[in-house]
Amino acid sequence: MYVILDLCLVPMGVGVSVSKYVVACHEVLKKAKLKTELHAYGTNIEGEWDDVMAAVKKCHEKVHEMGAPRITTTVKMGTRTDRSQTIQDKIESVLQKQSE
Amino acid sequence: MYVILDLCLVPMGVGVSVSKYVVACHEVLKKAKLKTELHAYGTNIEGEWDDVMAAVKKCHEKVHEMGAPRITTTVKMGTRTDRSQTIQDKIESVLQKQSE
Amino acid sequence: MYVILDLCLVPMGVGVSVSKYVVACHEVLKKAKLKTELHAYGTNIEGEWDDVMAAVKKCHEKVHEMGAPRITTTVKMGTRTDRSQTIQDKIESVLQKQSE
Amino acid sequence: MYVILDLCLVPMGVGVSVSKYVVACHEVLKKAKLKTELHAYGTNIEGEWDDVMAAVKKCHEKVHEMGAPRITTTVKMGTRTDRSQTIQDKIESVLQKQSE
Repeated sequence: MYVILDLCLVPMGVGVSVSKYVVACHEVLKKAKLKTELHAYGTNIEGEWDDVMAAVKKCHEKVHEMGAPRITTTVKMGTRTDRSQTIQDKIESVLQKQSE
Repeated sequence: MYVILDLCLVPMGVGVSVSKYVVACHEVLKKAKLKTELHAYGTNIEGEWDDVMAAVKKCHEKVHEMGAPRITTTVKMGTRTDRSQTIQDKIESVLQKQSE
Repeated sequence: MYVILDLCLVPMGVGVSVSKYVVACHEVLKKAKLKTELHAYGTNIEGEWDDVMAAVKKCHEKVHEMGAPRITTTVKMGTRTDRSQTIQDKIESVLQKQSE
Repeated sequence: MYVILDLCLVPMGVGVSVSKYVVACHEVLKKAKLKTELHAYGTNIEGEWDDVMAAVKKCHEKVHEMGAPRITTTVKMGTRTDRSQTIQDKIESVLQKQSE
């Protein structure tokens, strides 16, 4: 089952700056060979459900290893059976309608 | 890794009523022997990460089987290494402070 | 416009315990005379859009006043024009279907 | 109070395609002269809290006017008092650390 997932992982108990943790998560996602798109409030990820979820779990493990005692994560995720759709398809369907 | 997760699964393309899909998801969670608490905008779930994620995947599969061509899900999830904490602990820590 | 909103406000830069901030937010919501239901990963709130949003803003202001330099909040919110629906209606529609 | 907000508005009861509703919301945000960045699972928006929330409310009103009887929206939003930060700052702080 293919999923498009938006990941926003917030470490707690380690101050206000989170960028180094986001960078560490991107390394995990890269190693998992997942397609990702960074934005200002999270990272879009696409791939097979099990691969994506395994990578999200590794992100939690990695950020705990880096010293964060607590993590709160918000995820939005979409699956569909009517057609296949990528991150790029979703953006293009909006951009194309905007240009009509 | 123990996780407390808040699941809000929204079927798309099947009208405005979602309660029968929420009921179907609760049957999946019950079969998975996971502890759950229903609220007005989702269901709190706690358990081992792999068990909880496998159940969330089954919820998506079940709701697609019921005829929903598309699903968008919002999840909040927390893990921590400093102490163990249940759904009940989280609620009690607030109620107790309210009574102080 | 009536809204049912699920609020999960997370203070950053103030350690791992958030319960005292949740309690402070509940005082703000109580003063605003809004109906609320606490759960393990947030608080359901219902009321007129402007009243609810004004209270959410006050929660941010209050938690910053308490010393949190940064806040990340996740909100789920629903509006509908086909019928009126309360927090209790949403829960009962699921419980009733479960008992069928 | 300056806020960076990620908006994901999902119309219900109007089929599976949401792009025309996303386009309509972007017109509302543009009229409100708010800075926005589209991504595959939402739109980042930044500005003064009241301006941003008024625009989000207008998006709900607009999408209901377009015939959607029900809407479920997920929002992530951040405020901070320790420094000012834009959408671009947040992305650059990650990109810069990635290049170190």
